[in-house]
Amino acid sequence: MTNRSFRARVTVRLGRGVNDPQGNTVRDGLHALGHEDVREVRVGKVIDLVLDAAAADEARARVEAMCDELLANPVIETFEIELAGEP
Amino acid sequence: MTNRSFRARVTVRLGRGVNDPQGNTVRDGLHALGHEDVREVRVGKVIDLVLDAAAADEARARVEAMCDELLANPVIETFEIELAGEP
Repeated sequence: MTNRSFRARVTVRLGRGVNDPQGNTVRDGLHALGHEDVREVRVGKVIDLVLDAAAADEARARVEAMCDELLANPVIETFEIELAGEP
Repeated sequence: MTNRSFRARVTVRLGRGVNDPQGNTVRDGLHALGHEDVREVRVGKVIDLVLDAAAADEARARVEAMCDELLANPVIETFEIELAGEP
């Protein structure tokens, strides 16, 4: 079984309704710089990684496990996985 | 002139060659949890925001200005803007 390299982008965001002080600070900073009509600023994390797997569905399952175990806090965060094979 | 709402996703990443201690820590944590073949972990930020503008190109130009002024540090970071009209 030959493994291929996959590139994954994991986006971790605060759930709806969860207070986001960092987002509010960025919004206030943008307002102070003259961008008054910016609304609903939310700050999250993006984690780019490379892993080896036999197939795309295996790679996705492995990245999901990493999110559950370490990358996201399921109580307050949601995550989204985008996967690309590497040439 | 009627303004529309646009939803923008700004991804801010450390530039190539810039040391990423947070990414290295996440990589080590994943290795410790048994995900040994994960490589090249990089941690960045994602900023979701809503703004009003007359057209998509105006919205994009405004978000680019925000990145230059506040959201990204051009010395060590790169940014990427994805724009979607809001229904």
